[in-house]
Amino acid sequence: MNITIVGLGVIGGSFAKALKPFEEHEVYGIDSDVSTLSKAESLGIIKKGYLEGKEPLEISDLVILCIYPMSVLKFIESNKQYFKKGAIITDATGVKGIMVDDILDSVGENVDFVFGHPMAGREKKGIDFASAEVFKGANYILTPHHNNKAENLKIVEDLVYSIGFSNVKKVNPYEHDKIVAYTSQLPHAMAVALVNSDDDKYPTGELIGDSYRDLTRIANINEELWSELFLSNRENLISTIEVFQVKLEDIKKSLVNNDKEKLIEIFKESSRRREKL
Amino acid sequence: MNITIVGLGVIGGSFAKALKPFEEHEVYGIDSDVSTLSKAESLGIIKKGYLEGKEPLEISDLVILCIYPMSVLKFIESNKQYFKKGAIITDATGVKGIMVDDILDSVGENVDFVFGHPMAGREKKGIDFASAEVFKGANYILTPHHNNKAENLKIVEDLVYSIGFSNVKKVNPYEHDKIVAYTSQLPHAMAVALVNSDDDKYPTGELIGDSYRDLTRIANINEELWSELFLSNRENLISTIEVFQVKLEDIKKSLVNNDKEKLIEIFKESSRRREKL
Repeated sequence: MNITIVGLGVIGGSFAKALKPFEEHEVYGIDSDVSTLSKAESLGIIKKGYLEGKEPLEISDLVILCIYPMSVLKFIESNKQYFKKGAIITDATGVKGIMVDDILDSVGENVDFVFGHPMAGREKKGIDFASAEVFKGANYILTPHHNNKAENLKIVEDLVYSIGFSNVKKVNPYEHDKIVAYTSQLPHAMAVALVNSDDDKYPTGELIGDSYRDLTRIANINEELWSELFLSNRENLISTIEVFQVKLEDIKKSLVNNDKEKLIEIFKESSRRREKL
Repeated sequence: MNITIVGLGVIGGSFAKALKPFEEHEVYGIDSDVSTLSKAESLGIIKKGYLEGKEPLEISDLVILCIYPMSVLKFIESNKQYFKKGAIITDATGVKGIMVDDILDSVGENVDFVFGHPMAGREKKGIDFASAEVFKGANYILTPHHNNKAENLKIVEDLVYSIGFSNVKKVNPYEHDKIVAYTSQLPHAMAVALVNSDDDKYPTGELIGDSYRDLTRIANINEELWSELFLSNRENLISTIEVFQVKLEDIKKSLVNNDKEKLIEIFKESSRRREKL
């Protein structure tokens, strides 16, 4: 296939790196940053880089959009006339519900948009932090719609497995957004709030264990991307934060009441759930 | 030195494993579980195991207590008559303020109690999960008191470095408890509350990324140990939970108000703090 990756940041760059071993594919890149394109070319992970869509899109059987949520529709609007008839367009966006209808309305019926979300990433941004390794063993979510062709879903699914993902799950876009509010956005909100709770009085780095380090890794966060993700999914995220607030308040109440039995019950429940995972 | 480790669970067992390469030390173990003692003997990480304190304590220059918080004082009360004159007693307990005065009153002046806390551990319990690796590169906190001899603090500090810890920090016991409420207990409370927030409707394990996995590792928690730790430090933990609740509520409010600028400010602050770490 001819494949064009739009946006060679940490995710797009990781796709390009992960696709490098497959000589049956020609990979092109589109990015607004010239130095990113030349880096990708000199790494040999794209055949050629472009600042504009026309040339690579006209020959591409698969287009992978790895740009910010608010940019996906804009890109489609500006470039849909270049898409090759019958091409598959896919994305890597962390929210779905808010965007699918507008995108499907815009993109038309000449191409098949297969919505996807790799559940993998890095806290750093840019092609320098791209790595095929982050995809290894990770989960991938597809949110099919009724116009998707079964064979195109299969092509994306097979490609995703071939570059290292170990599990592809299909859910509807609104469920997807509820799920990621809980599995991805809430953890980011928690990590941010934890780091921001430090009173800066002590040399925290010298006084922590692995648990703190693990929990706060993602508090180093791409503020543009994640503010878009949070706000595009605000109702789901608010609901899931509220569920979490109740559960945390339960722990606090057990402490206030000096209630060891209740605490033990809460801990047994979390251990049971975590082991099941 | 003759060293006795009291409690060969995951922490005591890890001490024994980490001390194995040092032929200048003889290591003995005390545990209430016969099979744990024979495992430790057959692994060659203790010279001999005992169910009672008298024999090994009478010859030990250093005693490392790796038992539950509520058991430390009981052990001292029952065994203080056996301690060798001039011995160093140390512990690995995750709370200090609540226990130091009672222990110092009880233990008397024939021995020197050096309070310590390895900021390392595993979510599993028992000698089967003990590993010298968990100490590598980790932090260690000592909480000296005015009767500690400088040379004894130095002995414990040197030993701790020799078995792999990379940083030893001295703080007073009340500060220690404030610090660990934030750096260790709050993260455990958050992880537990997160896992317990799952509505169990979706196959969560297939829909998560590394962030969820990292954050919830410690939700698989030893309920006896951690309920003791939480309740022994309840005032500090309640305060730190409340600070965290305010910070999380700030994020929620930004979502409710659709306030992108505020969210970006919060994310920039957490990124700055996490990078500094």
